[in-house]
Amino acid sequence: MEIEVTQEKLAKALNSVSRIAVGKVTLPVLNNVLIRVDNGKVSLITTNLDMATQVSLPVVSSKDGVITVPAKLLAEFISNLPRGEKIKLTAKDTKITITTGKYSSVINGSLADDFPALPEIDEKNAVTFKMGVDEFKDGVSQVMVASSNDLSRPALTGVYFNTHDKILAIASTDGYRLAEKKLIKNIQSEINVIVPANSLREVLAAINDGMEEIEISFNENLVRFRLGDVEVISNLIDASYPDYRRLFPKESNIKVNVNKDEFLRVVKLAALFARRSAGGAIVCETKKPNTLSVKAVANELGENESVIETEVAEEGKITLNSRFLIDALNSLSEDKIELKFSNQVSPLVLSNQKGEDYTHIIMPLSS
Amino acid sequence: MEIEVTQEKLAKALNSVSRIAVGKVTLPVLNNVLIRVDNGKVSLITTNLDMATQVSLPVVSSKDGVITVPAKLLAEFISNLPRGEKIKLTAKDTKITITTGKYSSVINGSLADDFPALPEIDEKNAVTFKMGVDEFKDGVSQVMVASSNDLSRPALTGVYFNTHDKILAIASTDGYRLAEKKLIKNIQSEINVIVPANSLREVLAAINDGMEEIEISFNENLVRFRLGDVEVISNLIDASYPDYRRLFPKESNIKVNVNKDEFLRVVKLAALFARRSAGGAIVCETKKPNTLSVKAVANELGENESVIETEVAEEGKITLNSRFLIDALNSLSEDKIELKFSNQVSPLVLSNQKGEDYTHIIMPLSS
Repeated sequence: MEIEVTQEKLAKALNSVSRIAVGKVTLPVLNNVLIRVDNGKVSLITTNLDMATQVSLPVVSSKDGVITVPAKLLAEFISNLPRGEKIKLTAKDTKITITTGKYSSVINGSLADDFPALPEIDEKNAVTFKMGVDEFKDGVSQVMVASSNDLSRPALTGVYFNTHDKILAIASTDGYRLAEKKLIKNIQSEINVIVPANSLREVLAAINDGMEEIEISFNENLVRFRLGDVEVISNLIDASYPDYRRLFPKESNIKVNVNKDEFLRVVKLAALFARRSAGGAIVCETKKPNTLSVKAVANELGENESVIETEVAEEGKITLNSRFLIDALNSLSEDKIELKFSNQVSPLVLSNQKGEDYTHIIMPLSS
Repeated sequence: MEIEVTQEKLAKALNSVSRIAVGKVTLPVLNNVLIRVDNGKVSLITTNLDMATQVSLPVVSSKDGVITVPAKLLAEFISNLPRGEKIKLTAKDTKITITTGKYSSVINGSLADDFPALPEIDEKNAVTFKMGVDEFKDGVSQVMVASSNDLSRPALTGVYFNTHDKILAIASTDGYRLAEKKLIKNIQSEINVIVPANSLREVLAAINDGMEEIEISFNENLVRFRLGDVEVISNLIDASYPDYRRLFPKESNIKVNVNKDEFLRVVKLAALFARRSAGGAIVCETKKPNTLSVKAVANELGENESVIETEVAEEGKITLNSRFLIDALNSLSEDKIELKFSNQVSPLVLSNQKGEDYTHIIMPLSS
């Protein structure tokens, strides 16, 4: 195997794939990147068994062949070479030689036989659709914040892609909060799958300026994302997702409109006092005719209360985890937002005042 | 106690002092900042017992008094208030009330009686001098990199300020490398003290754009740094410093001039291979007539050799810790530098090609 390529292109491709090459004690080959030249087409591949990343690399010249080498070492090495240099990689047995101008190195790799086979999507039975990269990135980021890290409930560690009434929605919940975004308005296929949040993080990290479209394909147990030269393929989470739409309260008798930044500021101030108390609890309270107050529950640090002026038709209060509230506010995209709640038991519903495609709800703490 | 002050000024002063307010389990009051108003002069003071930072705060109005409050909580709280707001702090007993526009909070503090008394320099018996802030900052940074973290040899955890032949020099060594900078050329007083590197880090952190001069005062066991509104006072390290000048080799028979960035790049490449081997060893070797090669000792990762062209009159080689060499190169200020060494036993001497005020030496590893 041999390739000639510019430093910039190789460094960029290696940085994309090397993130997930973390290895496992039992399978050290997962530290490696597979470099494959097949009929002049060069691809770099890494996998952590849950998912794989593949980048197509445009090269100056090449000879067919295949090798695996430690991904992070190679990525750092190439990143440290001077920009603009032409780099030659030559593989022989389990060694790869890197030559460029004054530098020459040999990195010990291993035979490609040890590298796990990559899953492939069965194109015939797959559902495939395309959408704008920006809408995808924003939507996934807004939803993923509510996903769980608790591996004992695997469904909740993912993002649920699901269709109802020809709308493709994505949702996450950790049992204490829930975020839903309507991603595509008019979709013909039925989709009902859970994508690991970790895999989506890699997809988001692979997005570069200048990418416009993402192609997403699902079949029964795999999802594939195609973004320019980068392809991420991941296992789906094999579990059933809770019927999250039941969690949306049917009605809320208290509605207030607030400026997001102003509300976020007072919540952050209260959170400074709340973070040492159990649950980081803060209390939001409406008072007629025009007061929304936010306060931390008094503790050994002291007490804190801030007031926002806004029209209030009904009085009530709700106790919330301050960190969850800050996460939710950071996920809302508009300056003017709407808060809805009923009493201490039913959840707080947050949404943008204009756009109706994003909803975030937070379960109250018992006060 | 009462003060009225703008958000910007208070936030800046609190950020300066709160860094060292880390508290100790046995003395939680060290988490606090002492706010003292005395004859209309407002000062904020924190201490970690080894050192203290004091900032003078220009205020709109004030009433005399004193209190201590958790420094980091107050600093974060004030930082989160809107810029441009006028803030009122009012202390009563052990509570401080913060009011501004729509926000009001009470933070629980404690009586100032519990706060440790601050050491004061005896002006009469002190040696005091002034110098440019930039020269001070550069010199201390260039030297401090060679100081030790090993508390079992306290002298080496400091920077040694010492005079000889009317030159004030500063030096640090951890026993494996040594850096010396000639700070002031013509000084009349005798100075011979060790300043803790941790205290110097705080002094460097207190330097802001626009500061031009630093005033430094020593007496037997204390040092005081004055920088605009900020004053840092620190204990000296009570130990004797090794006679470091004996470590400079009298002669080196190999001298090579190199471009610093080019040399740093090849050292970093070799370091990628060297870092998993004992001592992170790399070998620098000169070959007539014009080759300086840098290579990592071969290990399970592979092997690496890079070559720099430069005039070589004598052949030789030296084995070095790659991290120490990278630190040294980052501390040199000029583009063109000089390397001097003799053989595997005597140290490598690094200096700028023009300026003669900075010297860095690294002991070789046994090859």
